[in-house]
Amino acid sequence: MRDAVLERLASGRGRFLDELITFLKFQSIAECGNRKDCVPCAEWLADLLERIGFDGGRILAGDCQPCVYAEKTVSADVPTILFYGHYDVQPADPLDEWETPPFDPQIIDDYIYARGASDNKGQIMTWLRGLETLIAAGELSMNVKVLLEGGEEIGSPGMAEVVLKNRQLLRADAVVASDMAWYADGVPSMTNMLRGLCAYEIIFRGPASDVHSGMYGGLVVNPINELAALIASFHDASGRIAIPGFYDDVQDVPQEQLKKWEKLSFDEPACAKVVGLNSFAGGEAGLEPIVRMWARPTLDCNGIVGGHTGSGSKTIIPAKASVKISTRLVADQEPDRIESLLREFIFARVPAGIKCEFVTLAKSKAVIFPTDTPLVRRAAAAMEKVFGKAPVFVGSGGSVPITSVLSELAGGNVFFMNLGLPDDRIHSPNERFRLDFFDRGAEMVCRFLGSDTFK
Amino acid sequence: MRDAVLERLASGRGRFLDELITFLKFQSIAECGNRKDCVPCAEWLADLLERIGFDGGRILAGDCQPCVYAEKTVSADVPTILFYGHYDVQPADPLDEWETPPFDPQIIDDYIYARGASDNKGQIMTWLRGLETLIAAGELSMNVKVLLEGGEEIGSPGMAEVVLKNRQLLRADAVVASDMAWYADGVPSMTNMLRGLCAYEIIFRGPASDVHSGMYGGLVVNPINELAALIASFHDASGRIAIPGFYDDVQDVPQEQLKKWEKLSFDEPACAKVVGLNSFAGGEAGLEPIVRMWARPTLDCNGIVGGHTGSGSKTIIPAKASVKISTRLVADQEPDRIESLLREFIFARVPAGIKCEFVTLAKSKAVIFPTDTPLVRRAAAAMEKVFGKAPVFVGSGGSVPITSVLSELAGGNVFFMNLGLPDDRIHSPNERFRLDFFDRGAEMVCRFLGSDTFK
Repeated sequence: MRDAVLERLASGRGRFLDELITFLKFQSIAECGNRKDCVPCAEWLADLLERIGFDGGRILAGDCQPCVYAEKTVSADVPTILFYGHYDVQPADPLDEWETPPFDPQIIDDYIYARGASDNKGQIMTWLRGLETLIAAGELSMNVKVLLEGGEEIGSPGMAEVVLKNRQLLRADAVVASDMAWYADGVPSMTNMLRGLCAYEIIFRGPASDVHSGMYGGLVVNPINELAALIASFHDASGRIAIPGFYDDVQDVPQEQLKKWEKLSFDEPACAKVVGLNSFAGGEAGLEPIVRMWARPTLDCNGIVGGHTGSGSKTIIPAKASVKISTRLVADQEPDRIESLLREFIFARVPAGIKCEFVTLAKSKAVIFPTDTPLVRRAAAAMEKVFGKAPVFVGSGGSVPITSVLSELAGGNVFFMNLGLPDDRIHSPNERFRLDFFDRGAEMVCRFLGSDTFK
Repeated sequence: MRDAVLERLASGRGRFLDELITFLKFQSIAECGNRKDCVPCAEWLADLLERIGFDGGRILAGDCQPCVYAEKTVSADVPTILFYGHYDVQPADPLDEWETPPFDPQIIDDYIYARGASDNKGQIMTWLRGLETLIAAGELSMNVKVLLEGGEEIGSPGMAEVVLKNRQLLRADAVVASDMAWYADGVPSMTNMLRGLCAYEIIFRGPASDVHSGMYGGLVVNPINELAALIASFHDASGRIAIPGFYDDVQDVPQEQLKKWEKLSFDEPACAKVVGLNSFAGGEAGLEPIVRMWARPTLDCNGIVGGHTGSGSKTIIPAKASVKISTRLVADQEPDRIESLLREFIFARVPAGIKCEFVTLAKSKAVIFPTDTPLVRRAAAAMEKVFGKAPVFVGSGGSVPITSVLSELAGGNVFFMNLGLPDDRIHSPNERFRLDFFDRGAEMVCRFLGSDTFK
């Protein structure tokens, strides 16, 4: 690679670290209606994209949070890449478990700590740093479109409509993102399969208001007890989801794929230790951890609340209780069908004395992308050059809801050049991003998209 | 009754209504550690008791909130009554369901609205108004001890020790309280049986912090799902508590008692309507509502919380989930034995990957008191005179935890002269107390304890 590019990469570090810190200070939690921090963040990004050499930085408005678009065209004769990322972040609660403030980024050793540091702001800024370097040095060898959305963490509400409405604008030869983690530290990874996601809230209402548990205990049906019974009925004793038809479109993992995964020799004790556990006791009995996390559906409660949650005792039967659930989908499971099955299962179990409300929060399908294309090979070569090892192709238990829609505009070509690590604590307190990846990742972008990549 | 007493009762109304408003403004929520509003409330009560003619108003300090004691001795030759009440109140949440502020009492039509209006501050102030009238008029015919505790709503922690330590001071021929409701409007009632209460918090801990439900779904055991499964296992399909041995000391209700209860002709639709329901679908199948609420044990969740409870979706497996439960006991069920059974049942069901914590919040035994004693007859006659009908004897599904301990200092003689109504909304938003009962109740006290009651 030309010295000018390497020099500019190095000299741009401080400037882009400052931009990353500014980026991380936006409390861009994606909740619809919370436009306070998302709109300024989107506007700041559109401005940043123009400042670093992109054209036509603009806001694409949808139902929920705005998304940001910009492009840099080099020539009609070279491939066009759409770089996708999301500037929204997970909520920061529980706040008391953060050792540094979630929206006041701190650099400690080789990490930057903040909500969104790894997921996805740090990875986005690494790309922008690489792209700025290539544009400034006149070394960009492909057309690049950038799409940064603001609702990924809540299931991308309204985003499919935004993408479809702008299908001409967003068309590309491939979609690339850096929104995933390495399989393990020391194992560069590209993700080529993602689970889908359906998320719902279920609300059980009983008496008109909280009532005395002595006066009414034995008379009034208790919304918490009944909601618990519903939740308990979602799984059977072996950990399988007990909703009839739920597994109809789940496929067995091909033997060839299983063999590749076996070679990854999943280190269960080490991975469990990251989250403070000795082993992974969750999921379906009798299946390997990798299969459970990448190739099997799940149904988890994400939050529950009802009645008295303050300190001490308050002897009531509460007026209501509610739970948020999410189910990860695999293979051919259709979100609409899963929602119907779930809805039917739930409403058949609402007992006398309870009214049930069912709210859809998110819906997306699982995806599997090809790994044997020229662009993927070029991306893999760039990763290998920078990180010293050829990347492995891995699945992810997570979901990037808009991927399946973007995929249609790019002939099914989507790939992830991962810059996260398994212990980045995404979605958890003390999220962080490794600064070595901020440097080597930007170089990876230059080697992938630069004109003399293979020189 | 002497005109002087009736005149003083009437002329004292405004003054005592002002005292009640002051009393209701103390946010005396009993939580241990919340001494901010409880200690000033206790001190104010001790002062009030002296101001209205009692001797030796003092604070008896225990583990949690202080209680207030005072006495008025007339003669060694007359019976001694211990009047028991509690100045602590339930928490006021959910605040957004109150139509008037819970600690800023408002008079609307014939009711005063505030947290504690009926349970128990309004009923206590009615007694103090009656007692002041008799003392001032020189017409008190019995020795009266007053004991007002500050932790009833949280199971009276440390109160048994306070009572036993002061057993000489508190000895009496009978304990009387006004901390219960009439069976129905128009049906004056005295409560002679109460259920016991055990309350606990159960905490399930999984991963060290909240983790991504995509990355870890299928690997990490979910504390909410598992807690829900535990809660669901507490009852069988018929609504019976499924904990082995739980019903060992529950007695069948005697036929004679059942016949008396039948005569009360429980109006299920009317009672259900009070709490916004059409019928009472809770409790054990095949049993009458009165039996379910007064003579059968229950196990209710009072509050549950875990994971993301804010708006929108947050796709995590939470680090913990916790539930507060209370069980109402009947007949010979011993709280210590019930706690052992419950503990054993729960810990046998804690799955791999979950750590369980079990915290005791309250413990008291069920009680049944005699109805055929001279003092109870005298009390019933006073109620009949004032309210125009002889009171019925009723059970209560609720609990007054210290009653069983006080009972021992009074030869088992405890009775309740109820001044609450079923739709007073105790423990609920918009709690209220009927002002007609504030007037007639004070007269009832005068007729019960006055020297010329039967003239």
